[in-house]
Amino acid sequence: MATRLSDVAARAGVSVKTVSNVINDYPHITAHTRAKVEAAIAALDYRPNVSARSLRKGRSDFIALAIPEMASAYFAELGAAFSRAAKKRGITVLIEQTEGESAAEQLVLDGMRGQLIDGIVFSPITSTPAKIGAAASGKPLILLGERTTGGTFDHVAVDSVQAAFDATTHLISLGRQRIAAIGVGGGGASGTGAVRRKGYRKALKAAGIAHDPALELAGTGYHRLDGAASMRELLALPEPPDAVFCFNDLLALGALRTLADAGLSVPGDVAVVGFDDIEDGRYHSPSLTTISPDKEWLAEHTVALLLERIAGSGEAERRSLTVPYTLEIRESTAG
Amino acid sequence: MATRLSDVAARAGVSVKTVSNVINDYPHITAHTRAKVEAAIAALDYRPNVSARSLRKGRSDFIALAIPEMASAYFAELGAAFSRAAKKRGITVLIEQTEGESAAEQLVLDGMRGQLIDGIVFSPITSTPAKIGAAASGKPLILLGERTTGGTFDHVAVDSVQAAFDATTHLISLGRQRIAAIGVGGGGASGTGAVRRKGYRKALKAAGIAHDPALELAGTGYHRLDGAASMRELLALPEPPDAVFCFNDLLALGALRTLADAGLSVPGDVAVVGFDDIEDGRYHSPSLTTISPDKEWLAEHTVALLLERIAGSGEAERRSLTVPYTLEIRESTAG
Repeated sequence: MATRLSDVAARAGVSVKTVSNVINDYPHITAHTRAKVEAAIAALDYRPNVSARSLRKGRSDFIALAIPEMASAYFAELGAAFSRAAKKRGITVLIEQTEGESAAEQLVLDGMRGQLIDGIVFSPITSTPAKIGAAASGKPLILLGERTTGGTFDHVAVDSVQAAFDATTHLISLGRQRIAAIGVGGGGASGTGAVRRKGYRKALKAAGIAHDPALELAGTGYHRLDGAASMRELLALPEPPDAVFCFNDLLALGALRTLADAGLSVPGDVAVVGFDDIEDGRYHSPSLTTISPDKEWLAEHTVALLLERIAGSGEAERRSLTVPYTLEIRESTAG
Repeated sequence: MATRLSDVAARAGVSVKTVSNVINDYPHITAHTRAKVEAAIAALDYRPNVSARSLRKGRSDFIALAIPEMASAYFAELGAAFSRAAKKRGITVLIEQTEGESAAEQLVLDGMRGQLIDGIVFSPITSTPAKIGAAASGKPLILLGERTTGGTFDHVAVDSVQAAFDATTHLISLGRQRIAAIGVGGGGASGTGAVRRKGYRKALKAAGIAHDPALELAGTGYHRLDGAASMRELLALPEPPDAVFCFNDLLALGALRTLADAGLSVPGDVAVVGFDDIEDGRYHSPSLTTISPDKEWLAEHTVALLLERIAGSGEAERRSLTVPYTLEIRESTAG
């Protein structure tokens, strides 16, 4: 049978109320009493009924991270970083995969129907800004990624225009002239593809290179499969590219496979840059040059901000955090 | 303001009780009444208060999947498969990353302290069989993976001894004689490493090859980093191996990177087999030969069994499901 509060009280020689006060961290308890109770708790391996505690303090210490795809390495690594950041603060992260489907995203916006989650971090794909803005589950919610709502929610993102500009400028600095972009169709009008294409075109323009629509491939998704297919299309062009900026690492890894199959050398024939800095790209042969968002920073700051919202402390004004990144130059551009 | 039950009732011209009966799918409601109420629900975009409904039916339609690491591609892909399998049945999966830490695993065994989760699928790393067996959260719990408790819980796993036997036998059939194993230290005495080594040794024995302890590397983890380091150790041996069986694909991908850095050809100089069939291995150059557990089957059958346990239907006896697998022969052994 499970140990009860009264067992702890009996062993410590104090009242049940005193044990309860120690567990709930009430002030005005002497160090001596606290030590006695804690020793009894340890000796009996007593575990407080946390559901009951949660009800009392009105918190569960669970937060949710809703992402489109956990099998996508970037989101998997991000999820892991969130779990670590939360664990440091005594919080557990539960991850929900929406697959970018509107019903699943609506469930998130509705607050994941239940009392068990204190707050939500949400990376939307299909939900329109209007739909996100209309969400009012009453639970703190922070948005991740390109898609914003003009200030209804706190928002955390990389400056994707600048990062795409940097990635493209790196390829230009290597003397490349026909620089393709894979993934321009990702996430609709205000999504990842559109934002990163903006930075890509800006860099070309700054270098006096006209952008060629034949070199901008939308693809049908952001997976290796899509990158491999887009690269095949590019190689079939009358004038194939000498460099490719892929809007995520999975696309880049697919493109590298197509280049290997075609017997082309990387970066000799075609230089390749990705975006995300997933582990796979670091171990690949050739290793992948990529934009590396600081995922630990992202997770730390997002969790800290969410906990501030849950506690109701801090400023009321919505905040927008910009995630730092670096350009990691590796073998796929530097030989 | 949110639409209320009374708004729906007013629009449909029926009582609140009738609307409630339709929402809760009670029998003895005429098709005509049902249609009127459903039309009103649609017109007003009414969403029932699902928490209240959950309380009534005693279920939340959320289940948890507790895995050691979501940034490990195998678990990420498994998590995605679980989400899909659950979604088909109207259930949402929340994923918890334990990092194999005993406190986090204990939280899982305690039932994840809350009413919101109907059942748990758990892949333990550090929890001892005794600790798992003693868990009595009252919530249905299914164990995944090698670590068992002798029948206290339902259990789902690949036959890792047989799969390791098949992988090793494949290398032997290619004429390889010095076959190394990377990952024999994974998961302690009854864990993945021990079980797969058993199959590896069995295959060597069946072929009349003595096993060489110098070729069995424990490593410190199951990541690319560990595979790369173990492969460096193997290449430093007076008599390096001509084949390597890595106990997961991440180890194998790390080993392939070391082989590429050393200028060795795969499979010419060293043939490599992995375990898990993650997407990364399929796109790698060379593509990776591997044991491919049927993850969709695993997710489908585990979710179905868990829902059976939650509903209290089906046989009371604990069940043990064996996940089908295939050996996928690719470039890393077949050149």
